[in-house]
Amino acid sequence: MQVGLIGLGKMGLNLGKNLIDHQHEVVAYDVNAAAIQEMKDYGATGAATLEELVQATQSPRVLWIMVPHQIVDTVLDQLQPMLSKGDIIIEGGNSHYKESIARHARLKEYGIRFMDAGTSGGMEGARNGACYMIGGDPEAWAVVEPIFRDTAVENGYLYAGKSGSGHFLKMVHNGVEYGMMASIGEGFEVLEKSSFDFDYEQVARVWNNGSVIRSWLMGLTERAFSKDANLDEIRGVMHSSGEGKWTVEEALDIQAATPVIALSLLMRYRSLDTDTFNGKVVAALRNEFGGHAVEKK
Amino acid sequence: MQVGLIGLGKMGLNLGKNLIDHQHEVVAYDVNAAAIQEMKDYGATGAATLEELVQATQSPRVLWIMVPHQIVDTVLDQLQPMLSKGDIIIEGGNSHYKESIARHARLKEYGIRFMDAGTSGGMEGARNGACYMIGGDPEAWAVVEPIFRDTAVENGYLYAGKSGSGHFLKMVHNGVEYGMMASIGEGFEVLEKSSFDFDYEQVARVWNNGSVIRSWLMGLTERAFSKDANLDEIRGVMHSSGEGKWTVEEALDIQAATPVIALSLLMRYRSLDTDTFNGKVVAALRNEFGGHAVEKK
Repeated sequence: MQVGLIGLGKMGLNLGKNLIDHQHEVVAYDVNAAAIQEMKDYGATGAATLEELVQATQSPRVLWIMVPHQIVDTVLDQLQPMLSKGDIIIEGGNSHYKESIARHARLKEYGIRFMDAGTSGGMEGARNGACYMIGGDPEAWAVVEPIFRDTAVENGYLYAGKSGSGHFLKMVHNGVEYGMMASIGEGFEVLEKSSFDFDYEQVARVWNNGSVIRSWLMGLTERAFSKDANLDEIRGVMHSSGEGKWTVEEALDIQAATPVIALSLLMRYRSLDTDTFNGKVVAALRNEFGGHAVEKK
Repeated sequence: MQVGLIGLGKMGLNLGKNLIDHQHEVVAYDVNAAAIQEMKDYGATGAATLEELVQATQSPRVLWIMVPHQIVDTVLDQLQPMLSKGDIIIEGGNSHYKESIARHARLKEYGIRFMDAGTSGGMEGARNGACYMIGGDPEAWAVVEPIFRDTAVENGYLYAGKSGSGHFLKMVHNGVEYGMMASIGEGFEVLEKSSFDFDYEQVARVWNNGSVIRSWLMGLTERAFSKDANLDEIRGVMHSSGEGKWTVEEALDIQAATPVIALSLLMRYRSLDTDTFNGKVVAALRNEFGGHAVEKK
């Protein structure tokens, strides 16, 4: 199948190669000319502009967008006037599902079919077999299913139903991920503060072979400790990219009690601060009522 | 190697068969005669009493105890006077690591070597390849390593060091497990309360293939939904067997901040109550200060 690929970042480049590995024809565009060249070297047709990409693809087009979620609307606004009725856009980034529903409705007015595809598995997944959760109209799904089947790991794609369901599933997936990662992190925190002298790489290795908590994340834990036995080179600052927050916001909206995922997110925020105002207030109060010493700056 | 196996419950029976599969000689004892018979049918020597088991094993003995942690001391107290200097006891249950350290010290006075072996992977693991975290004296470890290597999954055992380290690792493993399970549960809670109509078995299936949260637990989630699509037959009551609580108690003792694991445990406790006194107090207070309606019994 011919696929117009828009966005050749870490995910897009790997996806493009994966598509080509599976005998799909890729027409590739990015703002970065070096990335286009890398795709051309791998067998893709390069497009220097979105116009070129549209011209080089036949209608009904299948255009797969892999760009940061902040610029999806910019790309869609540029694309829409150039596209034809029946064209299909797959949005494979980490957009909020409500934005995907709105985009689906907006493009439907022009006869353009919009699929939201949550993508998991990281760069390695995009390259060798990803995990997809896809929402959108079933007629469009019937057209694009082969490219998902080909680029996914076995059993690694799900058409989840109506527009938004793909990005909703991906959002919640990431919420679960926050909680799992927090649990793993806290477990090693207990080991580190204990009176035992554990080899963390070996602990992660044994926990990842035959145990109840064996998981891809535990394998990554082993890999991280293999590179830096005590993670001495890394500060414990946990950034986040939005989907954990969205999961908690959604849980608040629908009154789903998700304290563990919420706390995982809040502990990430806590990790961003070297000191806290909260801590100053509590220390000051202990001093006020009990004369307990405070630590001075 | 000849192994005296004490305790033929779900774990012990499967471990015994696993040992025999690997050409070890098993002398098996349990209070339940039917379990002894099942082991005999599989090729073990049966022992009707602990005395018989001790008589049927040659010193230096290797005795593997797989009994509920509440009765470990009873078994040890019965065994100790019958054992010889140099005998090795492996305690493969879920004992608190501090108890294991105490047992190690107590038995050392009689020249008996005591290993604490945390075992993970459930019944399937015990049968086909378990995951072990083992603590104890290195000289004893050198003797027993082959039976762990043979009955573990590949890369699935770790000699973690001094006495107590095995059960400590298993305790923290279970703490991580609580957090992971809570995260998975909360994720599906968001799906269930959402406006989408997801097939949970299919969601668990796609999340377990290629995604960041793929894990043995996600595989079990898929299996559970395959048996009961919406878990209609199960109440959301989450019991616990102690190791999560021990992890949190340990974290409190050593001042390790583990809010996510702690909250996972507390949410299990919450699930045991159909109503809460906490809730009554808060509802009463809202009524007192704001006249907000309370729900009457």
